[in-house]
Amino acid sequence: MTHNDDHKWVTTKRKEPILFNVILFIFQVFMIICFASLTGYDRNEYTGSEDPDKFDGGEVQERVHNFYGYFRDINIMIFFGFGFLMTFLRRYGYSALGYTFIISAMVSQWSVLVNGFFEAWSYSNKHGEFPSTWIFDMSSLLQGFFCSGSVMISYGAILGRVTPLHMLIMGIIEPIFFFLNVFIGEMNLEAIDVGGGMYIHLFGSVFGLTVAWFLTDRKSKECTDNAPSYTGDNFAMAGTLFLWMMWPSFNAAIAPLGEPQFRAIANTFLSLTGSTVATFIVSRLFSHLGNKLDMVHVQNSSLAGGVVQGCIAHMNINPGGAIAMGFIAGSISVCGYLFITPKVQRKLHIQDTCGILNLHCIPGFLGSIAAIFAAIKGLNNPEMYSKVEFEQIFRAGDSQASSNLIATMVSIGLAIVGGLLVGFILLQLKKIKGLKSKEYYQDSAFWILPVDYPKDVATVVAMNSATPEETAGGDDEEEAVGKEHGAVEMGQHNRIVQPKQDNKYHKQLPSDDEEDDEFKQEPI
Amino acid sequence: MTHNDDHKWVTTKRKEPILFNVILFIFQVFMIICFASLTGYDRNEYTGSEDPDKFDGGEVQERVHNFYGYFRDINIMIFFGFGFLMTFLRRYGYSALGYTFIISAMVSQWSVLVNGFFEAWSYSNKHGEFPSTWIFDMSSLLQGFFCSGSVMISYGAILGRVTPLHMLIMGIIEPIFFFLNVFIGEMNLEAIDVGGGMYIHLFGSVFGLTVAWFLTDRKSKECTDNAPSYTGDNFAMAGTLFLWMMWPSFNAAIAPLGEPQFRAIANTFLSLTGSTVATFIVSRLFSHLGNKLDMVHVQNSSLAGGVVQGCIAHMNINPGGAIAMGFIAGSISVCGYLFITPKVQRKLHIQDTCGILNLHCIPGFLGSIAAIFAAIKGLNNPEMYSKVEFEQIFRAGDSQASSNLIATMVSIGLAIVGGLLVGFILLQLKKIKGLKSKEYYQDSAFWILPVDYPKDVATVVAMNSATPEETAGGDDEEEAVGKEHGAVEMGQHNRIVQPKQDNKYHKQLPSDDEEDDEFKQEPI
Amino acid sequence: MTHNDDHKWVTTKRKEPILFNVILFIFQVFMIICFASLTGYDRNEYTGSEDPDKFDGGEVQERVHNFYGYFRDINIMIFFGFGFLMTFLRRYGYSALGYTFIISAMVSQWSVLVNGFFEAWSYSNKHGEFPSTWIFDMSSLLQGFFCSGSVMISYGAILGRVTPLHMLIMGIIEPIFFFLNVFIGEMNLEAIDVGGGMYIHLFGSVFGLTVAWFLTDRKSKECTDNAPSYTGDNFAMAGTLFLWMMWPSFNAAIAPLGEPQFRAIANTFLSLTGSTVATFIVSRLFSHLGNKLDMVHVQNSSLAGGVVQGCIAHMNINPGGAIAMGFIAGSISVCGYLFITPKVQRKLHIQDTCGILNLHCIPGFLGSIAAIFAAIKGLNNPEMYSKVEFEQIFRAGDSQASSNLIATMVSIGLAIVGGLLVGFILLQLKKIKGLKSKEYYQDSAFWILPVDYPKDVATVVAMNSATPEETAGGDDEEEAVGKEHGAVEMGQHNRIVQPKQDNKYHKQLPSDDEEDDEFKQEPI
Repeated sequence: MTHNDDHKWVTTKRKEPILFNVILFIFQVFMIICFASLTGYDRNEYTGSEDPDKFDGGEVQERVHNFYGYFRDINIMIFFGFGFLMTFLRRYGYSALGYTFIISAMVSQWSVLVNGFFEAWSYSNKHGEFPSTWIFDMSSLLQGFFCSGSVMISYGAILGRVTPLHMLIMGIIEPIFFFLNVFIGEMNLEAIDVGGGMYIHLFGSVFGLTVAWFLTDRKSKECTDNAPSYTGDNFAMAGTLFLWMMWPSFNAAIAPLGEPQFRAIANTFLSLTGSTVATFIVSRLFSHLGNKLDMVHVQNSSLAGGVVQGCIAHMNINPGGAIAMGFIAGSISVCGYLFITPKVQRKLHIQDTCGILNLHCIPGFLGSIAAIFAAIKGLNNPEMYSKVEFEQIFRAGDSQASSNLIATMVSIGLAIVGGLLVGFILLQLKKIKGLKSKEYYQDSAFWILPVDYPKDVATVVAMNSATPEETAGGDDEEEAVGKEHGAVEMGQHNRIVQPKQDNKYHKQLPSDDEEDDEFKQEPI
Repeated sequence: MTHNDDHKWVTTKRKEPILFNVILFIFQVFMIICFASLTGYDRNEYTGSEDPDKFDGGEVQERVHNFYGYFRDINIMIFFGFGFLMTFLRRYGYSALGYTFIISAMVSQWSVLVNGFFEAWSYSNKHGEFPSTWIFDMSSLLQGFFCSGSVMISYGAILGRVTPLHMLIMGIIEPIFFFLNVFIGEMNLEAIDVGGGMYIHLFGSVFGLTVAWFLTDRKSKECTDNAPSYTGDNFAMAGTLFLWMMWPSFNAAIAPLGEPQFRAIANTFLSLTGSTVATFIVSRLFSHLGNKLDMVHVQNSSLAGGVVQGCIAHMNINPGGAIAMGFIAGSISVCGYLFITPKVQRKLHIQDTCGILNLHCIPGFLGSIAAIFAAIKGLNNPEMYSKVEFEQIFRAGDSQASSNLIATMVSIGLAIVGGLLVGFILLQLKKIKGLKSKEYYQDSAFWILPVDYPKDVATVVAMNSATPEETAGGDDEEEAVGKEHGAVEMGQHNRIVQPKQDNKYHKQLPSDDEEDDEFKQEPI
Repeated sequence: MTHNDDHKWVTTKRKEPILFNVILFIFQVFMIICFASLTGYDRNEYTGSEDPDKFDGGEVQERVHNFYGYFRDINIMIFFGFGFLMTFLRRYGYSALGYTFIISAMVSQWSVLVNGFFEAWSYSNKHGEFPSTWIFDMSSLLQGFFCSGSVMISYGAILGRVTPLHMLIMGIIEPIFFFLNVFIGEMNLEAIDVGGGMYIHLFGSVFGLTVAWFLTDRKSKECTDNAPSYTGDNFAMAGTLFLWMMWPSFNAAIAPLGEPQFRAIANTFLSLTGSTVATFIVSRLFSHLGNKLDMVHVQNSSLAGGVVQGCIAHMNINPGGAIAMGFIAGSISVCGYLFITPKVQRKLHIQDTCGILNLHCIPGFLGSIAAIFAAIKGLNNPEMYSKVEFEQIFRAGDSQASSNLIATMVSIGLAIVGGLLVGFILLQLKKIKGLKSKEYYQDSAFWILPVDYPKDVATVVAMNSATPEETAGGDDEEEAVGKEHGAVEMGQHNRIVQPKQDNKYHKQLPSDDEEDDEFKQEPI
């Protein structure tokens, strides 16, 4: 970096950290004041005079017993799962982990208050008076994770093209829409959505895709750093696996105790196995690269079975039905990565870095539709549930199916409105102090980096083609294998033509016939 | 890769994905039909009319409370633990994680049915009628994990030399033998085996070693890609540590409530600390490389303490006894890696990639023998247990010791029979459409790979010897350190002689006096 | 490595493994004997004759239910969390993971006995007779983890400059001081310290810093391998995140059931979000590198909120107060990394590899002081707690505040005494058979290493400056970004001047005006 570049950086980039710091600091002070003045800890209803040796902690301890295990698991999903899932990019690991960390932490605080406000409002609607102290309990903390999950899903679409300031603004605005949607769907429409199929996955992904529409430009599509690395893919699998393994907890956390909670666990698990099976089948089936498996599918589509069970995991859908739903969701998800995402990018100009369309949006929508049918079936066959369960699940009574239909539409509608608002604001910020296109999908703009920070793809390819393989004296077979990756051949029009096996980082670039979208390079 | 090679690949390799997809798809449809027609969710015995606000979920919720925590932990062991443990190979990370993922997911489904069948059979033996609906509860899901664990142990022996199709076939056949063995040992012989020391570790490892006997050839022994990488070893430690940390749950999951469950946790933990201590001592003691520690031992032998407690973790073996058992198992395991595995490979022609002989087979056998002695001791000293416990543990009564002896022999016998069957089938498949030897221990045959996929060892060694160290101007000391790794010296007969510190990837190659097994290379 | 070097190694280094093995073996045999003769498993008070089908496990099962979830979580913190947190160094991953593993395993055993001794002593003080069997229950195992945590904190200060033998000696001696301190503070003074703010964090860090004072020399400060790597930082974030996510369990594990346990969870979580927010603000605020984020801060200071809640997480400090405490602790922690640690190294000659001063010592001290004020406030406002809670928390009654003040001072005092003892012993060992300075911060002295073991920084920098970027034909913009890392410019006095973005590994080196402490190199 020349002195000149450095100077430019200082004058243009300094504003971003200052704005970020000012807004986040004000936010934090505001949080401290609000928590101090508004919230109170969950309490036992009696604060009796019992013998401490016999006292078992009462209701609060029961809530800790019932919820803390799930709290731990979902904590892992949000901070570790989402964070590491997004480390697949070659040069974006610090940002993937770091922004997930700070934004989820911030949203976890903010959610307690926004959720508290809507719960207080709901309380005042029923009881006539607005409570002066908002209860802060295990359930509030869980709601914070759910909302963080939604924001992280939205982050997936714009991964690599945002500044910390962008993320902060999204993290402040999205929770308001999220809890407004939950307020309408959960508290008023009383729709069925035990694991957030609508409220978290469908809402978060539509929100994110709308924002991504604002943050897509030609240069972002051309960027060769939007590519995975071998190490990064291994890290990402750690994220995928923890999401996969903890997902039964996600869908069961707030399910009614007893049979519904067991079914939420069992259906989610079976559905996840179904989507994993589908992922491997379809990934091998359609790949035009000689039926090879694609890590992108394994990392994402295998989770579609958890998303599709989001709404109805706790219902009596038959274990075979759970597997089938997972299988269908996984199949469609892989097809989405292969066929839909490239089209969405080319035609709609929405660049969706992690493919949340295929992981969250489509399976979430399928799950929402499934909830409508499950509601109809349950209303027609009430003997499928015990009386207790029926009352717990079908809270909207005879209008359950239409409640769910409306809640689905409201989720999509509010996500688009919120996404338009956030996208518009981010676009303004981008014009003033955004990332340069050369800084997309890289940590270098905002992080101090070690000496072994990965080089850009072009350099790696050039280095690989210059490896002293001949001096190693490998026999012919070895050499053939060695060249499967990293070799570069020059094609027509002076473009670098990747060998077939290597074009993974082309995955979201449009097809060859679109001249303006290709990765061009001057003759070597 | 030349056009010619590519062409060959298309014609020879296309069959593998097609067969894989067809079999897996049929399997999945079969699963959906069976689950839909045969299984029913776990239910409360009463489906009462109580007030939903007061309903505590009943027996189903109690089972969720008792088992779901263990379910989560064992889920982590199977998918994350085994998956990452096997990522130590330099160029096999995708396959290690991916095949663990798909096969364990598939086995988890399959197990519910196979287990359900044997449980229904057992029920019909007692009650005279075959149940029309097979109960599907937390316990079924746990059994699925146990069976997956067994298959993953078998995978460890043949890691790097199998196609997804091979794994799929093993994943279909092995569970049948697994549950047949459990049916005989657990339901009929009523042997003591709380954590699967016999049913999972001994059975799975003997099964895997038998299969490995079919899948070992001269070229597989020569392959230099059967070597760890620094990053891979770090990932593998994540797998090791999660296995280690969750192991108390593995052994306690189905232990009787109360003192046996506590002892299962405590004994397993103490035994694991004992094997960890032994691993470090013995690894430093016997290494002919200047008393240096070997990561292979740390990753594997430290877990021997969990395996050896598999049968009797819940018994009253004294905390000191638990540590001693772990210490002995860990010591023998390291010795196995150093002395037995190379001999088994050279003399018996069984190549055991992960060393499951030392991690699962020997400690599992030790634990099975220990169970016989613990049974004898318990029968002679019934005052060691409360009456309740005694009935729960010594189900076979006075014949408990002989029950366990027979169950051990049955486990070994069935594993060999099953392994012969699977090995024979895989060998036939291998002849038709197996991996070429140059594709062993590599992801490249079945995965789309990024540009930074690691190079083969010979290339790395050549590159290291050509590093521009002189231009860096390091002083002499620095240079000496720099050359500790990567430097290549030419020995006699034009072979590359690895410096002492670097020969980790020789660990499973036979000793120098066997001419035909060595890694040969043309003169540079 | 020349033959000569090798020879020297053999003669000088062989003693270390032999001594290590002898001491550890004797230790292990001693443990087995002590456990076998002294400890007994936790038992139900009655060993009744009930029906095994109805028996619910009694009190032992209740303890398993109450503690095992926390046991799992803290197990993850100690072995995975601390282990991976310390893998940030470029060439020290095996040692970070391996020594954490063996020493924590060994301390976990040792702690049960040392803790058992002090508990037996305490019992004999009250009841007049020394118990012949020391109870070994879930609580003993948790105490083992707490003590291991303390030792791992101390390890953080001397990371990279110790041999396994050093660690072993510290692992034997530190627990004695640890439990003596707990005995005084917890059993006699009855101070408030629910999550070990004093006993674990403050004690462990002061102990470690004292030891580090002995193990700091000029060469250790100059070592360029004391630098992070990109992959290592990703691994370290896995450690950080699991510590962060499991921390509520750490502080709640032994909190009284009911409201105190819920508050411990909630306060810790909120405080952690506060310190995470502070970390990002302050890291961007003060960095002289163009407001860039520093991974060192994210990995460490974000955890300060858990440390600062160590003493009083279970108290009624208001949720807003919890966030504020976390925010303050996180802010001070980042400032510590930026301003205090370099000074401590230069002036006091204490080199603190992981910065435990900023992560554990300062926040732990803040938390200890906060406990005094919280005690005063609680004594003046007893209505803040129910009667039951008040008795459980304020065990020392009216003298609670002074009890806590004394316990804080005792913790610091005993840590210094213990640290002096251990440091003195280690220094003697170092003189006889220590690491050479060129072996600091490297795995190579004690581990067998694979061929891709990372090269030293100077070599990497030289390789980067020689990358064939020009042949890749990147345009100018790409090149500028490419050079941000890895480029080397020659400055005055023939020193290598790192570009601004690259000086992360200078973070603990003193400022430029101190001639004797700089990284010098001969002219290239």
